[in-house]
Amino acid sequence: MRARILGSAAGGGLPQWNCGCDNCHAVRRDDPRVRARTQDSLAVFRGEHAVVCNASPDIRDQLAAAPRLHPRGVRGTPISAIVLTNGDLDHVLGLFSLRESQPLAIYATAAVRRGLVEHNAMCATLSRFPGQVVWRTLELEREVELADPAGAPTGISVRAFPLLGKLPVHLAKLSPSPEDNVGLSLRADGRELVYAPGCALPPPGLGDGADALLFDGTFWTSDELIRLGGTARAEDMAHIPISGPEGSLALLGRCTATRRIYTHINNTNPMLALGTAQRREVVAAGWEIAEDGMELLS
Amino acid sequence: MRARILGSAAGGGLPQWNCGCDNCHAVRRDDPRVRARTQDSLAVFRGEHAVVCNASPDIRDQLAAAPRLHPRGVRGTPISAIVLTNGDLDHVLGLFSLRESQPLAIYATAAVRRGLVEHNAMCATLSRFPGQVVWRTLELEREVELADPAGAPTGISVRAFPLLGKLPVHLAKLSPSPEDNVGLSLRADGRELVYAPGCALPPPGLGDGADALLFDGTFWTSDELIRLGGTARAEDMAHIPISGPEGSLALLGRCTATRRIYTHINNTNPMLALGTAQRREVVAAGWEIAEDGMELLS
Repeated sequence: MRARILGSAAGGGLPQWNCGCDNCHAVRRDDPRVRARTQDSLAVFRGEHAVVCNASPDIRDQLAAAPRLHPRGVRGTPISAIVLTNGDLDHVLGLFSLRESQPLAIYATAAVRRGLVEHNAMCATLSRFPGQVVWRTLELEREVELADPAGAPTGISVRAFPLLGKLPVHLAKLSPSPEDNVGLSLRADGRELVYAPGCALPPPGLGDGADALLFDGTFWTSDELIRLGGTARAEDMAHIPISGPEGSLALLGRCTATRRIYTHINNTNPMLALGTAQRREVVAAGWEIAEDGMELLS
Repeated sequence: MRARILGSAAGGGLPQWNCGCDNCHAVRRDDPRVRARTQDSLAVFRGEHAVVCNASPDIRDQLAAAPRLHPRGVRGTPISAIVLTNGDLDHVLGLFSLRESQPLAIYATAAVRRGLVEHNAMCATLSRFPGQVVWRTLELEREVELADPAGAPTGISVRAFPLLGKLPVHLAKLSPSPEDNVGLSLRADGRELVYAPGCALPPPGLGDGADALLFDGTFWTSDELIRLGGTARAEDMAHIPISGPEGSLALLGRCTATRRIYTHINNTNPMLALGTAQRREVVAAGWEIAEDGMELLS
């Protein structure tokens, strides 16, 4: 099993279209201390099969930049399955960029699927022909082997587990469910990768024993957006901040994952810039900071 | 008035994620004969105001690549208004990438607006706060001056006119209307730019007297996709092919626009590659082929 971080930014990416924060400004003036980042997504490979976790709005660029995800033949894709961790727009908009005469197998909890399919006419564009999308339901805490649209097994298994989160703005009228936001344990060939890009509170033991934990690195502090004139705290958006006594760096201090990596990083997060105290603190604690195109495992 | 072609490709872009046609393959191997292209969009500038026509899924990249569209200050945008020519996903998905605490003024016909807003829960993400989106109705053949969300005039006027088109797949159950697909005549400072990125049949006199006509260059031939294993003819998708006695090159042969430019070009179109007979034919007829970032007028 190999993995590639297709995108490591939170919703909006880096730079974000309407943001002039220090990080966005640095990327626009080509400051080498801050790298551009596309929105959160992960690809996992085994043999001929590729599985993409979350379909970000940047998926066209992300696939173009990854030779192993290029089509084989005149029409086709090595992507055997897509797994969704929630219904956030930065995790599902990319599905509409995968419209074409191409069957897709999409794995999601029943709650995520309902929110996406039953409330958006655009999903009809993914039902152009019978079998275009094969939806497969992720049940919480049940490990399943991922299969391609025709049912061929990939050798990669997934177990979804509940993570404290929040319904996306466009589905805020629906009843909350523990299936609204999940983490994924991906396994193949005796390796395990845990992917938890959005999380309000890490459950005890998260990532323990895994080869790698990819965890929500959205915000450094709770009031990061408020300092820039916004109104929402990190907690209001169901993202635990990294810093502070109640932050993820403290709460996951005893996690025994071989590698611990922050991803889904908001453009405003000061740890994105080389040379900041925040970046030094994360690295000193044994964490890595994801970058687009970063490869994991082998 | 100045204009910049933000994207010059049809839906899917170049390369298209699941396509291994000659052009997509050439871009992936960095062949200098074929340039990568993002999906169809146009920006028009006058003074401090920018107007974006169509919001493509690639809008984040397109804005990042255009310094005049970068935010001013910590949060903000020089984009005063957005104008939609139809409800195709490659023209509207980008709206969801403009979600943030940022007011938007969107101009569309009543039919396009209904299809987008009434049938897609995701649009709730563009109603986070009162006044986030100010929808303004484009009436056919009526010239209006575009204004920003607060009502400040831009000095750029637009007239929408009906173009024979087709409802997008996701809205195919709705009743067709002449408002489903429009062309735009954009005017400022005595200059005129006509933008018609999707068109099944050009109306008589289209673009005559304009400083520039940007016209639907999706397909070279009617059976372009069928030759690659597809099932739809250009006409089935409401795009007039360029070549042949009934093609746009022949039908627009007497158009008196100062510049005539093909845009919204599908990845399979052979005129995209330098050195092809098709490209020579277009250029010999006095047409240009749009590229991302191309600037027009002054």
